[in-house]
Amino acid sequence: MRFSCQQKTLVNSINIVQKAVSSKTTLPILKGIYLEVFNSHLKLVATDLEIGIEHVLEVNTYEEGSVVIDARLFSEIIKKLPDAEVEIALKEDNHLYIKCENSEFNIISHNPEDFPELPTIEEEYSYEITEDLFKNMIKQTVFATSHDESRPVLTGVLMEIEEDTLNMVALDGYRLALRKGKIQGPIDNKVIIPAKTLSEINRIISEEENIHITLTENHGLFTIGNTKLISRLLEGEFINYKQILPKEYKSKIKVKTKSLLDSIERASLLAREGKNNLVKFVVDENRLNITSNSELGKVQEDVYIDLEGEAIEIAFNSKYFIDALKIVEDEEVYLEFTTNLSPGILKPVSNDNYTYLILPVRLSAD
Amino acid sequence: MRFSCQQKTLVNSINIVQKAVSSKTTLPILKGIYLEVFNSHLKLVATDLEIGIEHVLEVNTYEEGSVVIDARLFSEIIKKLPDAEVEIALKEDNHLYIKCENSEFNIISHNPEDFPELPTIEEEYSYEITEDLFKNMIKQTVFATSHDESRPVLTGVLMEIEEDTLNMVALDGYRLALRKGKIQGPIDNKVIIPAKTLSEINRIISEEENIHITLTENHGLFTIGNTKLISRLLEGEFINYKQILPKEYKSKIKVKTKSLLDSIERASLLAREGKNNLVKFVVDENRLNITSNSELGKVQEDVYIDLEGEAIEIAFNSKYFIDALKIVEDEEVYLEFTTNLSPGILKPVSNDNYTYLILPVRLSAD
Repeated sequence: MRFSCQQKTLVNSINIVQKAVSSKTTLPILKGIYLEVFNSHLKLVATDLEIGIEHVLEVNTYEEGSVVIDARLFSEIIKKLPDAEVEIALKEDNHLYIKCENSEFNIISHNPEDFPELPTIEEEYSYEITEDLFKNMIKQTVFATSHDESRPVLTGVLMEIEEDTLNMVALDGYRLALRKGKIQGPIDNKVIIPAKTLSEINRIISEEENIHITLTENHGLFTIGNTKLISRLLEGEFINYKQILPKEYKSKIKVKTKSLLDSIERASLLAREGKNNLVKFVVDENRLNITSNSELGKVQEDVYIDLEGEAIEIAFNSKYFIDALKIVEDEEVYLEFTTNLSPGILKPVSNDNYTYLILPVRLSAD
Repeated sequence: MRFSCQQKTLVNSINIVQKAVSSKTTLPILKGIYLEVFNSHLKLVATDLEIGIEHVLEVNTYEEGSVVIDARLFSEIIKKLPDAEVEIALKEDNHLYIKCENSEFNIISHNPEDFPELPTIEEEYSYEITEDLFKNMIKQTVFATSHDESRPVLTGVLMEIEEDTLNMVALDGYRLALRKGKIQGPIDNKVIIPAKTLSEINRIISEEENIHITLTENHGLFTIGNTKLISRLLEGEFINYKQILPKEYKSKIKVKTKSLLDSIERASLLAREGKNNLVKFVVDENRLNITSNSELGKVQEDVYIDLEGEAIEIAFNSKYFIDALKIVEDEEVYLEFTTNLSPGILKPVSNDNYTYLILPVRLSAD
């Protein structure tokens, strides 16, 4: 195996696959990156057996072959090399020779036959979605997944394809995020993608290309330019989220996103010292009064609003509001409430692509 | 106590004093910032009993008085307030009232009489040095202090004033950094300043003013604009560093700082896996060959040099070289060697303000 390419190009390729390298593993080979030289190309592969990332780039090839090299050491060496042509070759005794200007490394490598093969997925039928949109949909849902491993389906995001619409849904028992977007593809479908997979996809997405998604019974394949990310799907039935979303409301508030976020963040400075990060909303004609108190003191905030419907008093865990207000990109949002024991809804004013549901906290009689 | 000022101004002032707030303390009052309103000014004070920082700013004052408020909570609240006028007042029950636009906080405060007074220091005689120079002198020495608390003097930097020259010296038993600079002041002096104090001073320095330094038997007072930093001095006798510095050399190398740094950093990628971060230098006519190896593999680097004097083979802990090469601002440095068992010297080519000594590692016969 022998090839050469520019140092910066190789750094970029290593960065793409490196996140799939297993950090905690009892299989040492998974700490490596698989390199394969074939037909003017270099393929890099890394996997932790849950997610696999494969990236192909053009290089100058002198001899085909493959090798597995420790990911951390390889990455550190290539990153520290000068911005110039790097030559890499497999030498006797399985040493990987790396040369760039006046630097020469000889590093112990591993047997490429020990590296696990990624599942083979036929790409005959695939969905297509724009990168920008998919990135945004991931950002607006993935934060609402659960970290509780005892209910695995909630640690992922539901991808529900109905005709030309993709619904992405995440929920953790306290809040639910639903983002709708356009998708092109062959048939309706419903899968649960692990949150980690989606976060990795968001990290890789950078160019202005479409993403192709292929779904099998157990795997999802995401093709982004020269990179393929293959992930296991989560098994199990997702909660029937449509049943949870309220159909009507008694109070509808229009408020500036930034003002609301700032006020809740300030109120939560005291709230977090108590339990539940409790902040209390008192909604009146054109005023949302937010209060919070703990043994350290108390705070009150007034936010200007437009109210349609009834006045209401309701309390929330401030964290769940802050999470959503940070990822909404619209300048104004609607809040919809029915009673102080039923879920509140947050929606952008400018479109109906996004719905965020949040459970209230019961107020003690005071 | 009642005053008002702009939110941004107050954030800036809190940032200056907050680093002196004690993070680990059995005295709760030391987790606070002392605020005092007097005569159109606000004074903020924080101390961990080793270092005290006092900062004064002009504010609109309505009522004189003082208070102590939890530093973390106060800082977080003020930072989150809008960029507008903030009003702060002490109310009944020792609650501190904070108002800014539509936000109102009432926070429990502490008794200002419990806050320790900073030592009083007469500023009659003081040294004067430019901020830029002092900042640079700190940066080029403080990293070489020891972290070993069993030899307290080595955890500080020697400030030795001889006529109009300040020598700052740090050493940890493996290397020594000596930086010379101009200072104005009344008499010769010799004190040891804790490394933490100097790091705090470097953090505070930002404007184009001179620093005034007043030294007493036990304390150093550093006046930087409206900020005073008072620090305990370290007790004990500093090592006679002049005796350690070699008077001559047998090999003198001129080399580009960046090339040498890059090569040693690459070599150390393998070196650090072994013990001592060992890198070996082989100096020849116009070539410095750097090698390192461990069970993971081996590396060799060639760096172009000008050599005056004898060829030599010598080995070092790469960390100590990297630390120094990172803070030297000159494009080229000299390395001076005598034998492979005696200290090496690193100096900038363009001036003789800086001398860095580094002990070699004995090479096993191989």
